[in-house]
Amino acid sequence: MNGAEAFIETLHACGVEVCFANPGTSEMQLVAAIDRQHGMRSILGLFEGVVTGAADGYGRMADKPAVTLLHLGPGLGNGLANLHNARKAGSPIINMVGEHATYHKHFNAPLTSDTEGVARPMSDWVRTSTSERDLAHAGAEAFAVAQGYPGKVATVIVPANHAWSEGSSPVAPPALAPAARTTGDAIAAAAAALKDGEGPKCLFLGGRALREEALIEAGRIAAAAGCRLIAETFATRHQRGVGRVAVEKLPYFGEQAQAYLAEFRTIVFCGTEPPVSFFAYPGKPSWLSPEGATLVRLASLREDALHALSSVASALDAPTEPALIQQPGSFPAQEGALNSANLGAILAELLPENAIVSDEGATQGGASMLACAGAKKHDWLQLTGGSIGQGLPLAVGAAVACPDRKVIALHGDGGAMYTVQALWTMAREKLDVTTIILNNGSYAILNIELMRVGVQNPGPKALEMLDLRNPAINWSQISEGMGVPATRVDTAEGFRAALADALAHKGPRLIEALL
Amino acid sequence: MNGAEAFIETLHACGVEVCFANPGTSEMQLVAAIDRQHGMRSILGLFEGVVTGAADGYGRMADKPAVTLLHLGPGLGNGLANLHNARKAGSPIINMVGEHATYHKHFNAPLTSDTEGVARPMSDWVRTSTSERDLAHAGAEAFAVAQGYPGKVATVIVPANHAWSEGSSPVAPPALAPAARTTGDAIAAAAAALKDGEGPKCLFLGGRALREEALIEAGRIAAAAGCRLIAETFATRHQRGVGRVAVEKLPYFGEQAQAYLAEFRTIVFCGTEPPVSFFAYPGKPSWLSPEGATLVRLASLREDALHALSSVASALDAPTEPALIQQPGSFPAQEGALNSANLGAILAELLPENAIVSDEGATQGGASMLACAGAKKHDWLQLTGGSIGQGLPLAVGAAVACPDRKVIALHGDGGAMYTVQALWTMAREKLDVTTIILNNGSYAILNIELMRVGVQNPGPKALEMLDLRNPAINWSQISEGMGVPATRVDTAEGFRAALADALAHKGPRLIEALL
Repeated sequence: MNGAEAFIETLHACGVEVCFANPGTSEMQLVAAIDRQHGMRSILGLFEGVVTGAADGYGRMADKPAVTLLHLGPGLGNGLANLHNARKAGSPIINMVGEHATYHKHFNAPLTSDTEGVARPMSDWVRTSTSERDLAHAGAEAFAVAQGYPGKVATVIVPANHAWSEGSSPVAPPALAPAARTTGDAIAAAAAALKDGEGPKCLFLGGRALREEALIEAGRIAAAAGCRLIAETFATRHQRGVGRVAVEKLPYFGEQAQAYLAEFRTIVFCGTEPPVSFFAYPGKPSWLSPEGATLVRLASLREDALHALSSVASALDAPTEPALIQQPGSFPAQEGALNSANLGAILAELLPENAIVSDEGATQGGASMLACAGAKKHDWLQLTGGSIGQGLPLAVGAAVACPDRKVIALHGDGGAMYTVQALWTMAREKLDVTTIILNNGSYAILNIELMRVGVQNPGPKALEMLDLRNPAINWSQISEGMGVPATRVDTAEGFRAALADALAHKGPRLIEALL
Repeated sequence: MNGAEAFIETLHACGVEVCFANPGTSEMQLVAAIDRQHGMRSILGLFEGVVTGAADGYGRMADKPAVTLLHLGPGLGNGLANLHNARKAGSPIINMVGEHATYHKHFNAPLTSDTEGVARPMSDWVRTSTSERDLAHAGAEAFAVAQGYPGKVATVIVPANHAWSEGSSPVAPPALAPAARTTGDAIAAAAAALKDGEGPKCLFLGGRALREEALIEAGRIAAAAGCRLIAETFATRHQRGVGRVAVEKLPYFGEQAQAYLAEFRTIVFCGTEPPVSFFAYPGKPSWLSPEGATLVRLASLREDALHALSSVASALDAPTEPALIQQPGSFPAQEGALNSANLGAILAELLPENAIVSDEGATQGGASMLACAGAKKHDWLQLTGGSIGQGLPLAVGAAVACPDRKVIALHGDGGAMYTVQALWTMAREKLDVTTIILNNGSYAILNIELMRVGVQNPGPKALEMLDLRNPAINWSQISEGMGVPATRVDTAEGFRAALADALAHKGPRLIEALL
């Protein structure tokens, strides 16, 4: 058995079932090894950002890693932005990156680069195999790292001669470390603060604390302590909708977020750190929590959120029934020109039970997020690392992980262009994804940010750099060119009909919403 | 004057006239500064790989740097692959990469990453400004580095507070170091080897040795020494066509390249290193020069090729008139189903004087390259670093640098998808680029490489990973969706008509050649 086969067999024995791939010559032995392992599905992306973003979406929904297949340092480079987002999300991902044969590297052939150097900034762990036998060990180690709670990005660099040399064999799946738990002191401090601290009080939630079971514990705490529940602005995977525990959402802009939190005298953080401004702005604060308030860090992203919350609920002797159960929203008929508000209301009305929403809606997506709080149960996935171009690939990965659930990709036009190639993979794999492009012909967020950083009276050249209307992008043509049927709509009635039709059919569709 | 303005003023005083940009919030002050500097043109790319590839194309044609504008570590990550190609090309580029304000970075906001770490693998030089006053100095230093012969990639990381703080001022353009020259010993050794060495002999040329003036010197040497002239496989910018000195081309595949060189007993290298196999293959050599031959390194990529060749010509007392002047090709009428051979013949026949060809034609482009040797004078630009997805952005940059010349982007379908967003920039800037997509529905090169690395009887899953026909990509729809008029052709007659029409009009067109 060659090194590539032993590596792939090892990953498969660990439970890895999906490979998102964009291979080149140096990865052909890995392609052949995947070909032979019938338990491993291979999914081609026509750009590496699609591959890594899909692995993120898969990891968020499957709670275990897919493996990516990337072509040397430059191919990995193309995947870095979505690895950055995945790492901020705490997603489990294993990257396998081809490399020149060890004896070839010093010849400095054109594709030679510092592959480990490219990997390091966006990986939690990087390792180059040292032999064909070692490659399988590297795979098992990568799996153990990737499954570090809630998930990590592990990168294995595979010299081609380690892949093709015979004499290797698979290794047994590693023992996985249980999720780290927060300390008893932190639990006691959180319980005391929530019970006896100065009010108003809130429990600020992120990471795995936004999963359904953890939210039930948070709702019990709210019932016992009378605290509010607030979610971090960009959530990895927020389980919400009617019947689940409802959580408020911290606004994006720093000054709004600061104002939102200003009234609280006691804040307990679970699954995330105290929020900070997304960017720095002249004369505006980076730190958003109110001065003088009591801040208690119950559990970080890397500590078991469910354990932390249920421990606090027990310490508070909280009732079994959670407070703040989400009630159904009301969805009056919408009509007239399409805008983000009526689009959001229609989406919330029609969202099917158990849907997954990949939200990179940016300025036009906020109304949908708010409206869908009162929709049927669903998972809401967001852009965790701020690097736009994640939403379409994320939808690909979520659809692969959950073939029986409808996936909605809600996407701003600016961001969608970065990884537009994801549409082709949706078509190829017949993924059940409805993509909604919020086409406002603009990097609208940057028009706002230009003012917020203190640029007064921007000139035409500056404004043009934020404008996507010259020429206007026809998303429907692009989508059809990649094999995804598309519709353009500019009225509420048109959007409702297109969305209802897309939801009634399996397979990829794109709705271009002209706003 | 704030730091951003002083930085941009400094770059402009150095002669930098173009900014290829994909900005975000942390770069808004730089956007505003460019807005105010009327001598700086700003060109938006909807993905960072477009931005960096365009800067490469501009640098190759202008022999001076454009500046890129990129959004923090992840935005730079998206641009790395084409920076890799640019670095291998020896192109001059200055990157300006926004960064969080210095006091904001430790808050670990979502877009925080190790930006210097991301920059280092694909930059020749990296520097983060230390203050608003220092930023202008960093710009001047970056310009001096970028102009290091023949060109380097210099990256300046710009913390947002250095950009927005007042109290800075521009600095004077730096003195530029002259190009390094090869030693007298190397010149003497090359002259002796070419004059008295064992035959057959060849002069192996790369980098700036493939420019017109240097080739005249190479042709004089050929006249004096009776040596052949051979170009490296992937050239940064090869000036060729009727009336110029003709140069043979080393084949791509290692075993063919080795066989091509096998007869030579004496090889002199100028502007490049002795060639090596692009990848390693089991049982095949990496080093391609014939064993026992005399190899003389006259000048590296970083040493003045024109000086080296003219010095050798002088030492040989070479005649004024170069040998090997290219004669016009003959271009019989082509008909029937379109294929790479008749496409190449038609391109060669119609190629206008002074055209620029950005060649990422891959398996289907070789015939065009060979046929165009006998076309009118032109510049042929190739994929220097092997990371596909360079050709469309390169054409953007070349067209910006040379607005009076027709640019042809000859591109394989697989590679073109990586940076397909370049089409939008062509439309927006009304660039005079005719894009020819060689649509064979396949990563055809990988089907060949699969066999060459020793994979026998690949299964359907492996073959599917190299196939782009499920679904087939409709390039014309994608192109029109981005604002570039497009035509699909599948016959020689149809291609000829479409190409003639595109060449007769200014502005962007796309021809989808179904092969």
